[in-house]
Amino acid sequence: MTSHTERRPRIAVALGDPAGVGPELAARLLARPATFDNADVVVLADSSELADAATIAGVTPLVSAEPAPVRALLLDDGSYPAEPIPPRVVSAAAGARVMHQLHRALAMARADEIDAILFTPLNKTSLKLAGMDHEDELRWFAHELGYDGPTSELNILEGLVTARVTSHIALSEVAPLITSESVTSIIVLLNEVLKGSGIERPRIGVCALNPHGGENGNFGREEIDEIAPGVAAAVSAGVDAHGPFPSDTIFAAKRHEFDGIVTMYHDQGQIAMKLIGFDRGVTVQGGLPITIATPAHGTAFDIVGQGIANLGATEHAFDLAVAIAARRLNAAASPRPR
Amino acid sequence: MTSHTERRPRIAVALGDPAGVGPELAARLLARPATFDNADVVVLADSSELADAATIAGVTPLVSAEPAPVRALLLDDGSYPAEPIPPRVVSAAAGARVMHQLHRALAMARADEIDAILFTPLNKTSLKLAGMDHEDELRWFAHELGYDGPTSELNILEGLVTARVTSHIALSEVAPLITSESVTSIIVLLNEVLKGSGIERPRIGVCALNPHGGENGNFGREEIDEIAPGVAAAVSAGVDAHGPFPSDTIFAAKRHEFDGIVTMYHDQGQIAMKLIGFDRGVTVQGGLPITIATPAHGTAFDIVGQGIANLGATEHAFDLAVAIAARRLNAAASPRPR
Repeated sequence: MTSHTERRPRIAVALGDPAGVGPELAARLLARPATFDNADVVVLADSSELADAATIAGVTPLVSAEPAPVRALLLDDGSYPAEPIPPRVVSAAAGARVMHQLHRALAMARADEIDAILFTPLNKTSLKLAGMDHEDELRWFAHELGYDGPTSELNILEGLVTARVTSHIALSEVAPLITSESVTSIIVLLNEVLKGSGIERPRIGVCALNPHGGENGNFGREEIDEIAPGVAAAVSAGVDAHGPFPSDTIFAAKRHEFDGIVTMYHDQGQIAMKLIGFDRGVTVQGGLPITIATPAHGTAFDIVGQGIANLGATEHAFDLAVAIAARRLNAAASPRPR
Repeated sequence: MTSHTERRPRIAVALGDPAGVGPELAARLLARPATFDNADVVVLADSSELADAATIAGVTPLVSAEPAPVRALLLDDGSYPAEPIPPRVVSAAAGARVMHQLHRALAMARADEIDAILFTPLNKTSLKLAGMDHEDELRWFAHELGYDGPTSELNILEGLVTARVTSHIALSEVAPLITSESVTSIIVLLNEVLKGSGIERPRIGVCALNPHGGENGNFGREEIDEIAPGVAAAVSAGVDAHGPFPSDTIFAAKRHEFDGIVTMYHDQGQIAMKLIGFDRGVTVQGGLPITIATPAHGTAFDIVGQGIANLGATEHAFDLAVAIAARRLNAAASPRPR
């Protein structure tokens, strides 16, 4: 028997939306021997759907129905529906398929049977058609895990991590949610995540909301009334936080000064992150008690079935999930300071 | 005497905010013999302030008080204030200095004494301190020129031109201004500008407003209710317009498919344009009866007086003003089709 401190992180892989490129990306990830270098992997899929995805991808996934070295354990529960799910379109059936496997993964997490979840791209509209009525999957995961602390989707690329104060909501709903408390809360969350990733004293930059940072109140007062006080409160709490900076210059001119950047709304960070590295970004559901990672790109309906989707972001997401889970295991196993 | 069709465009150069890098950039532009290859240049400045800027830049501007070949005509009206304007800070005095010279330039434009204006960076806060009460300088220029048609600041970089439906306003005020009419109007404006620059049938992409383009109405309905109908109306009017596309992918994945992109708000385009080419972008005040261009970057108070500001965007802005003005002169001189 290995002791708790020595065991490898256990990662659950879910295939994502069956109408998108998720299954073929998962098949390719699981065909890569390096996937098993540092983690024990379980796959939540029926063998038939994984086989179909493997055919598309032209690979042989390293899976088996019994635990085996350098193979993923396939947990086939025979749940694929009798009616095939149509590719390249949103549907309630596709959303229900994603929800079924993520439910299984979350149940395993609650039972401490896994340490992290990697899922390939899902489609929010299909999830909503299937009855997921949360703002996004992060809110749903938090609900399912019974977690009500602060959370933020984190986007990760080339040593830069972004967290955001608001996420999947209409742009018209953003401004009222920018409060000094919400700003401070996300700065502190990002600081904790970055410290958890091994950075002793993370440097954090904070975006303004308005063009030119409001230009001294000429185009909006959120910088003066909410964001600057929110940054000041984080600094008082010991965080090396700076800003607000106009969002059209922080990414172009200042991003190398920071380990993390807090944005006020989804596209403020995503326009920049996708320009810097379109296919390579990773999303981590930040703040949750377990690590959940996914490639930042979408289901790419336009190239489904061609086996040409870029595996880079999925590899990075998997490797990051393993690294964070391993660090959490080590931290849990370390003796407390006396 | 040269005939109207043969004369060169006449460009007025204004120094921009005296507290910023504008004067030193203007001095360097005017020290470059190529500046006079295709245009007759007048400079709106006192000789003392231009001399100070030239000393900082370490150059000798090619100017004279009388018309001369390969020299700019310096129109010194002895208006520099007795009290020196403080560098590197906003002030009403700096804003008033900018307004004085731009007023002169606009008066010359109204009197048909010049064909285009190039100004180096100004500071909106200083302008407001000096009493400019328009949303931005574009609105002010339109007012001064008695022009009430549609306008849009255009941002130009490496063959891509962006125009925007809203500009220097608080983010909280953006959504109500996104109407099918406002969207169509800016698509048509951009189409005209691109045709005026020599592109026979410009391809125009249009951004969504909400994250993921609202994901089928899940996070905002502007795409469905306003932007798509606005694009359809532009197509009906003969424009090769496409969209809406989510703004975090149009710049990263689709920008090379378009000659121009219409954005819904300032930072949506500027985050991308500054990442693609921070120092090189040019702004043109689109829609006005005369051509007004400026570098897209700001006053850069942090490097004022060091002579290190990058001249690239100022050169591009000047060259573009000359090119557009020359094309307008040619178009005006061409015989009408019978």
